Formats: sequence, structure tokens, C-alpha cells
Amino acid sequence: MLSLDLLKEISLKTPTKIVLIVMDGLGGLPNPTTGKTELEIARTPNIDSLLPHAICGLIDPVSPGITPGSGPGHLALFGYDPIKYNIGRGVLEATGINFDLKPGDVAARGNFCSVDDKGLITDRRAGRIATEKNAELCKMIDGMTIQDVKVLCAPVKDYRFVAVFRGSGLYPDVNDTDPEITGVAPLPLKAQTPAATKMASIAAEFVSRAKAILAKQTPANMILLRGFSVPPKMPTMREIYKVNPIAIASYPMYRGLAKLVGMEVVDTGETVQEEFATLKENYGKYDYFFLHIKGTDSSGEDGDFTRKVKNIEQVDTALPAVIELKPDVLVITGDHSTPAMLKAHSWHPVPVMLSSNWCRTDNKDKFSETNCRTGEIGRMPTENLMTLMMANALKLNKFGA
Amino acid sequence: MLSLDLLKEISLKTPTKIVLIVMDGLGGLPNPTTGKTELEIARTPNIDSLLPHAICGLIDPVSPGITPGSGPGHLALFGYDPIKYNIGRGVLEATGINFDLKPGDVAARGNFCSVDDKGLITDRRAGRIATEKNAELCKMIDGMTIQDVKVLCAPVKDYRFVAVFRGSGLYPDVNDTDPEITGVAPLPLKAQTPAATKMASIAAEFVSRAKAILAKQTPANMILLRGFSVPPKMPTMREIYKVNPIAIASYPMYRGLAKLVGMEVVDTGETVQEEFATLKENYGKYDYFFLHIKGTDSSGEDGDFTRKVKNIEQVDTALPAVIELKPDVLVITGDHSTPAMLKAHSWHPVPVMLSSNWCRTDNKDKFSETNCRTGEIGRMPTENLMTLMMANALKLNKFGA
Repeated sequence: MLSLDLLKEISLKTPTKIVLIVMDGLGGLPNPTTGKTELEIARTPNIDSLLPHAICGLIDPVSPGITPGSGPGHLALFGYDPIKYNIGRGVLEATGINFDLKPGDVAARGNFCSVDDKGLITDRRAGRIATEKNAELCKMIDGMTIQDVKVLCAPVKDYRFVAVFRGSGLYPDVNDTDPEITGVAPLPLKAQTPAATKMASIAAEFVSRAKAILAKQTPANMILLRGFSVPPKMPTMREIYKVNPIAIASYPMYRGLAKLVGMEVVDTGETVQEEFATLKENYGKYDYFFLHIKGTDSSGEDGDFTRKVKNIEQVDTALPAVIELKPDVLVITGDHSTPAMLKAHSWHPVPVMLSSNWCRTDNKDKFSETNCRTGEIGRMPTENLMTLMMANALKLNKFGA
Repeated sequence: MLSLDLLKEISLKTPTKIVLIVMDGLGGLPNPTTGKTELEIARTPNIDSLLPHAICGLIDPVSPGITPGSGPGHLALFGYDPIKYNIGRGVLEATGINFDLKPGDVAARGNFCSVDDKGLITDRRAGRIATEKNAELCKMIDGMTIQDVKVLCAPVKDYRFVAVFRGSGLYPDVNDTDPEITGVAPLPLKAQTPAATKMASIAAEFVSRAKAILAKQTPANMILLRGFSVPPKMPTMREIYKVNPIAIASYPMYRGLAKLVGMEVVDTGETVQEEFATLKENYGKYDYFFLHIKGTDSSGEDGDFTRKVKNIEQVDTALPAVIELKPDVLVITGDHSTPAMLKAHSWHPVPVMLSSNWCRTDNKDKFSETNCRTGEIGRMPTENLMTLMMANALKLNKFGA
């Protein structure tokens, strides 16, 4: 695999522009009635109008057979090895809410939960309390000082919050306290390496104090912690690719992921049209645009085949606003598959199309899994897509003499 | 590449069942008369009936252009890096005959051979003596004690035996004594690393004593040794994948390979029907089934195109016995190619088909090298197949947050 250092050496600053549209969970499975996937059923005349100047393929975010979370799925799209740069859940949630993590901070994802009088978990999500309630509870447990460590708590959404441990000598190698089942007590905190002894004891004290503070609350009278992690040390896209990247995404987690790799993140609306309008407004100021569309994944996870088809068609309908900007490279793909038939993220390789003035053509007439199977991109690790986009934007020098 | 440690973390114990049918040496080359390979000529209606719910591809056991032995070919199928876990010939032969290797043992593969009165090799296989004769000769040289080392000999088949050196401080880094040509003397034993000095001198003394003992025998009056090796340290399939695996194979070497990765190995018959009956008998007790079919390789090695076609058709004819068990994942492939046109193992990528309820479809009507070329599996390292089977059996958790 190419190293990021090598790409740094050969990447070029140019005025050409790259637009990457990520339909979250785009890949699908055939519906037994029609034998066609969501993308195959969707009417996509605008996407298809690009195919005479496009190449297609199927891409594996992590490796064949591996179902990726959103973190690995996106890091691979941004050109990073998703196994080497594995982002913990704590960090992912923290960056998603714009929490300003400092070097040395350890972040954990928290759940407010319900326990009975014996301390056994009755609801891991405390009846999915409202975000407003969550914010109130966070205030109650925010700002503790334990030894030299400050514990900062901030609400994310519903029952989910972030706990950030700020102090010296903290290492994230401790277990989750969330047993992921009900009827048992939260798991005790244990260091998984000698270096993490302090982290384990501080976190245990935090949980114990939080339990006392929340004791009289209903239904959220306890907390669960998981995914203790530190931000991975990674070079930014700016450093590697000499691009000026911007992220247009409405969901916090994807904004957080973009920030981790050094993208500018701007405010945008919830609809595809609003996101595309944000692209247009910022088109002069950047040269790499990451647009994230959430709907396709949500409908896939809900098992709603028809809604996922509509989500894809919405993107297609709005697409002329992007096409008329005439980006040098326009890529449409997903971060992973979320087949409505499976109601979950899946391992299936993801359809991708790359359109540019400098690619060959696959002579396909429809963007679909079936047509992507025999396209020039072939079946490729998602991680390689960034290099292919850079090349098609003439942003890469020759390698070797 | 994914590490086995990572797979261990995300693998799940489930009741779903995986059946892997390996037709040894399946891949072929077109016959000049018809322009079709063995698999393309073979009538395979039962395999083809699976294609509406299957994906196809071509897989490389080691790397494009590399012709694998049986060891690497199978280890890759079982999900192991065949270069990292290279199994020496001595160990392979020993495990194949159920020889109980202990930690610290060094195993070598032996040939009984013929030498003339000057000690020059006249036949490296002693006229392919019968296994019964081999057993007699083994008794004559079995059980020597040289310094603190015991040398154990056991017959394998025809002229082939195993010599196991059991004692302290033995390292396998010594050369083969088999020069692989006739008309010359066996090569003297030399240590290839300082640590192997003792091994070299013990083995040299063993060869010298064996020569004296066998001097009056005809035609097998000498031995050749090769492939000094120790069992590789590798995690079992049970540890990595949480499966309960069983091997159904009639040939010793494949039974041995299966044992090395921790499979249960049961008795079975020599025919495809008998192997499939063994599968049926054991179907309730296991969740991963490796079936090995030897015929396709033997006919390929003999250059018998027509017999190889028949061997493939025999598997197809017997296949309904497997299909009616409705395994969650059914894979048909080979451990390497053995084109009858080449009369040998070859480097050509191997056709594979994977059928499950959760795969897309390639819309192919025949299992063939040509159709596999444009299937969704694409061209992939064989090593990735195990992960893909696990995914399709819903035996893998998501990777990353």
C-alpha cells in the first residue's frame, strides 16, 4: 500500500476541484420481488448522464467481508488506512459535538441508564431520555476534580453524553463498563495495561460519584462508559494532499470525522438541496468538497427499501446544482453498504462512480451495483479512491524517475 | 491486511453453518480443441442452480503468479497468511499420518532411495516400493538414540516416510540431503544457522547409520531427507473464528493440514458420495465443514483432461446431498489450479463461488473461469475468503465505531 508520506511528496497544489458525494450506506441487496437493489430501482437520470465520462467499481472500506462502522468507512474515503487509524467511540462522539479535545485528554462515550435498587441495569438507555434532560444531568456530574484530573461531561443526543478526562498520565486502555445487556450490574473498571492503572481508578471514582449524585433521578440514575480513547495522531489532508478541504454534513459524527482529518466544517441545512447550496456558496474558496448525505443510511437501517430508493432519487434530483459547477472530479459513492434487506451496516462492497475529463469510460447506462461490478475501478480498497480522485484532478506528480 | 487478532475480536458464535467444498486443483486451462477449460466443459447443473444466489470470482492462494503447494493453498482457504505460516514438508507429512509431534520435535520427510556401489543415487524413489515394504524398512531404522536425541521413523506411502528428531536444542535450519537429481551422491548435512549445528550432526549420524543398516536391501538401500521443520505456532480456527470446524478428507495430508489449524478430523470414505454422507452424519454437531476432493488434482497432474472433467461432474452429481442440508453459506472452489494441459499445480487464479442468503447475484448461468472473471468477488487473495464466508454467515460484528 502507498504510504501517506509518498503521497505527500508527489501531491500538487492546483486550482482543480474535487467533489465527493457520500450517500451513507449506499450499497444494497436485491429485493426478492424485483431482484434489484435500492440503487438499481432508483431513477437516477442525472447521475447516469455523467457515465459517458465516468468509471465505476465496487470498493471495500476495510477488507472483503468486514462491516465497517462510520469511522473506518469515512477514514478510508479520505485516503487513510482505516485499521491503522482506528478512532475510538469516545473520541468520535467528542469530535462530533465539537468538543475541543486537548493533547493528553481521554474521551469516553457515556450512556445515562437505569438501575434497580440492587444496582442491576434495567434499561441501558434510561428510556431514551430527551436531549434536554441529558443536558441537565450532564451539568450535575460535569466538572469533578479527582486527584489532578478534571472530568468534563457534555451531552450528545438523547441518552448519550461524552466524558472527557483531562490530567496527567492518562492512558485509554480500560474496559467498557457497559455490559451491553440488562439484568446485570455495570462492569467494574480495570486497567488492561499497567500504564492505564491511573485511568481505571479515576474513572471508577467518577462512576461512583456520578452514581451517588444521580441516585434520586428517574429514570436516569446511573451511567455506563465505553470506548475510552485518545485522538489518533494523523497527518491532515491538507498536509498530505495539499488540498483545501471542506466538509458539508449536517450530522455531528461526520462533521467530527472531517475535523479529525483537518477539514473546514461549515454550517449547512438538513436537506440535500441545502447541502448542495452550501457547496455552491463555498465553491470558490476550497478545492476538495466532502458532502455527506445521511438519509440513505437511516432508511437502510430502518429496513425501508422504498424510502432508501427515494433518498437516492432526492440526491439525483438535486444533482444538477452540482453538475453545473463543473467540478474537475465528481465522485458518488458510500462509506459502506446498508441494505434495507439487512437493516444494518453490511460488508457488501460499495458502488462508486468517478467522473472526470481524464478517465476512460465504462459505457454503462445506469449507476448500479451490477454495472459497477464490471467497471474499470474493479474491486478496490476504498482507501485507494482518494489517490484516484487526486490523479483525475491532475493533482499528483509522477512517482519515480 | 486484517490481523487474526482483529478477526478474533469481531467474530461471533452463531448457529449458522458454513460448508467449504475444495476440489483440489480445480482451476484449469483451455483445451486447444474446444477453447474451454475442464470446468467449462463439465456439466454442472447442480452447482449452476446455486448461481442465482451466489457471487463468483477468481482467487489467488499466495499471490499472482505464484504456484502454491498444498500447504499454502489450504492455509489460505482457512484464512491464514500462507507466507507467514509456511509449513515445512516434514511437519506436513507427520501431521498427515497422525504422528503426534511434541514441542521441540523436528520433523523431516524421508525418501527410501537406491544408490550404486559408489554411493551415487540411481533412483530417488527406490522404484516406488510398496507401502508395506516401506513399513518394514522403517522398523529397521526406527528408534535410534544419538546423543540425547531419539529418532522416530514412520511410513507414509510408497517410498515416503517421516523422521522425527526428539531431544533438546534441535533447530530445523539444515539443508535437504536430496539433490533432486540422480547420478550424484546425497548432499552432506550442514547447519544453515549456528543454532542448528547439533541438528545437522545428529541428522548426519542418523543418515550414516541408516545407510549401514539398509546396505544389503534391494532396491531401497539408502535414504534422502528434506524439509526439516517444526510445527508453526498458529492460533486455531476455533480461537479466531469461534467456529466448531470439522474436516472431511480421505487423503492424509489434508487431514493433517486441517488438524494443524485445530479442526476435528473424522473418518470418511474415498468417494465423493461417502464424503458427503459423512457431512450429513455430522451436520448437527459442527458449524464449519471443510470437504476435500482429491480426484480433480490427481487427474490434472496426470494430464487427463477428460478424467478431470468427470471428477468435477461427480462432485456436481453428488451435490444435491449437500444442497438439501441448506447450509447458510456454501462455497465451491479449489486450493490452486492444476490444469491438465500443464500436468502440474499452477499459478492460475482459482474459480470460486459463494452462495448465501445475504449475497448479491452475478446473474451467471454456469460456474466457469470465464464467468468468475466478472463476478462480484473480483480477483482476491484466497486468504480473504474465510472472512467473506464468515460475513455471509452473519458471524462477524462491525469493525470500528
